Amino acid sequence: MALLVMKFGGTSVADAERMREVADHVARTRRHGDDVVLVVSAMGKETDELLRIAEEVSAVRPGREMDMLITAGERKAMALVCMALNNIGIPAESFTGSQAGFLTDTNHMNAKIVEVRPDRVRASLESGLVPVVGGAQGVSTDRDVTFLGRGGSDTTAVALAHALGADACELYTDVPGVFSADPRVVPKARRMARISFDEMLEMNACGCPKPVMRSVEFARTWRVPLHVRSSFTWEQGTWVVEEDPTMEQAIVSAVVHDVSEAKVTIAGVPDTPGVAARVFRALADRGVNVDMIVQNVSEHGVTDISFTAPRADLEASVDVTRALADEIGATGITTDPTIARVSLVGAGMKSNPGVAATMFETLATAGVNIEMISTSAIRISCVVAESSVETAVQSLHTAFGLDARPE
Amino acid sequence: MALLVMKFGGTSVADAERMREVADHVARTRRHGDDVVLVVSAMGKETDELLRIAEEVSAVRPGREMDMLITAGERKAMALVCMALNNIGIPAESFTGSQAGFLTDTNHMNAKIVEVRPDRVRASLESGLVPVVGGAQGVSTDRDVTFLGRGGSDTTAVALAHALGADACELYTDVPGVFSADPRVVPKARRMARISFDEMLEMNACGCPKPVMRSVEFARTWRVPLHVRSSFTWEQGTWVVEEDPTMEQAIVSAVVHDVSEAKVTIAGVPDTPGVAARVFRALADRGVNVDMIVQNVSEHGVTDISFTAPRADLEASVDVTRALADEIGATGITTDPTIARVSLVGAGMKSNPGVAATMFETLATAGVNIEMISTSAIRISCVVAESSVETAVQSLHTAFGLDARPE
Repeated sequence: MALLVMKFGGTSVADAERMREVADHVARTRRHGDDVVLVVSAMGKETDELLRIAEEVSAVRPGREMDMLITAGERKAMALVCMALNNIGIPAESFTGSQAGFLTDTNHMNAKIVEVRPDRVRASLESGLVPVVGGAQGVSTDRDVTFLGRGGSDTTAVALAHALGADACELYTDVPGVFSADPRVVPKARRMARISFDEMLEMNACGCPKPVMRSVEFARTWRVPLHVRSSFTWEQGTWVVEEDPTMEQAIVSAVVHDVSEAKVTIAGVPDTPGVAARVFRALADRGVNVDMIVQNVSEHGVTDISFTAPRADLEASVDVTRALADEIGATGITTDPTIARVSLVGAGMKSNPGVAATMFETLATAGVNIEMISTSAIRISCVVAESSVETAVQSLHTAFGLDARPE
Repeated sequence: MALLVMKFGGTSVADAERMREVADHVARTRRHGDDVVLVVSAMGKETDELLRIAEEVSAVRPGREMDMLITAGERKAMALVCMALNNIGIPAESFTGSQAGFLTDTNHMNAKIVEVRPDRVRASLESGLVPVVGGAQGVSTDRDVTFLGRGGSDTTAVALAHALGADACELYTDVPGVFSADPRVVPKARRMARISFDEMLEMNACGCPKPVMRSVEFARTWRVPLHVRSSFTWEQGTWVVEEDPTMEQAIVSAVVHDVSEAKVTIAGVPDTPGVAARVFRALADRGVNVDMIVQNVSEHGVTDISFTAPRADLEASVDVTRALADEIGATGITTDPTIARVSLVGAGMKSNPGVAATMFETLATAGVNIEMISTSAIRISCVVAESSVETAVQSLHTAFGLDARPE
């Protein structure tokens, strides 16, 4: 008998039919002897719709009011899911973030959890009910309603699983798990049965959007096993768990790609202390979210600094670097808005030094030019032209033996 | 300088354009030097839409979850109205029923207010902000979200006006006030500038749906002046106030009609004590909402008892009375589902005994047959055939001098 916290995303509770399917799944799980706590997102595209109405109403949108507005979406969904459960004879009751004991800071639109005291949720469970908690919300230390940000329902689910001492946190979505590559690019991508928190975080950082990074970070810190799975097929998905040192690791678990960034190169910078600090402080002050940074070894006392940042920040990046160019003695600023980052992620890389070489050879053989390289203990990322991203991902997926076997 | 509580109904906040109009009106009122607290309903038909989704999701709809669901509508509206106010430079903040201090009983879907402690609303006002409160909601003594019922926003506004010691409670709607008759039936109906609480309550009871009776009862108890007016024209509407004994009263203020009821007659009942009690206890136990009851003087020891009830309750009424007929010795049950009630309301009737006679003469001259009669100190109601309701209302409106003068 286990205690499971199940989180259902927007597509999983998009309409009456899907809510009834959720209720049926809860019934199956309880018949199996497990206790269940649900966390739900707003229905379908409701959060987007609420944001759209707010934009239509006003150019001034205080965070406190936005949070009140947006969290109405989860309240609707949680009440309706409770009704669907009651409809098939499963007693259930809903809890807002506040009622479920989510105390947050006062940072509206992106509040941080300060404490979770799920006394009412626990009492509900002990009475034999299924508690249904509104995702991504809490009450602030100022007694105002707060929103934890987009994707915050995953965070709610993980934090609640931790606070309740649940055996696992299941994140139900419209895809059946985490894949060894984006199945739209690599038809032979495999669903992974198991992946470590560290690998998942590297994949998040390199273009894999779900589950959201913040929830994986919480799960890793609190050692809450995650199960990413589908509410459409209900089959077993991908477990995201602590690395098991007794098991042999796959050298490469997945190939991840991201085409949302642009590249800026500051050429001919004198290689003197403090130059990089000047540049990246100025970018940070302007709010540019810099991702990769590469500085080559200097020749003749000058070097090139390249960095990537979201394409939306490209204009600001150019402004900032052009304004600094004279001062730091750079010879020019060049940009490339159509880059892609391709990354290998795998816990086994730590003890397999040949992975980078194989990656570069594979890309060379496939005719893909590498523009930048950056590595971590369990990841290698290469920036390539956006036009060669599919070739790069597919050739790496095959080269590292990740392709699914033909049926 | 006055403190006004302004309540805006669903049509008054139906979309972004209407919300901006509300904000502009608040700006005008504040420039005039008055302080303002807003109470808002859900946007347009949102409450109906939420009820529809709930029906689609589940046949079992626990009250606690329905209240959570429905109150999401007012939360959206109040947050958006706050944004519209901020957009034109008026600082505003929203409060749920709970945040505004509305403590209620645990009777979901139709909760009663136990206490109003508007500390946060008062603090907001004192800081120079416009508080915007979600209508028709509160928090129960069990710490659950409660809904005060359809039309509950009017009640919220009146209760809040009382708790804050406001000078008046303005109920904004899509009609410009209370009329001397339904303008759809009587084109010459006049908007009344002023009406007493007692007259308004009689009008509510006799078919005038707005403002909802419960809010008028609260306003009368707490002596909160009501101003019923339009959020489309913003012109002066109708004041509903305490009767002023120093003023001469209009003998008849309005002609109200109602076509929502049916009539049941129990014929040939022995005129012995306890028969009526048996009948109406049985109807009450079945949940039939009986309105008018008329028992004629008995002839030869037998009498007829007639009553009216909502048409939706007609079948239940017939079941109950047929089942009792033998036991009480009645000779038959007859029904008429197509009746109308036409009522004259006027505080001046109390001291003018000829009103009833004039009413009956007027109806006779117009060829309208009277089926039942019932009176109170300031009201006379006649049940007539539904087909003659327009003739009845129009002839009475003219006979009692209520027609507007031609332009």
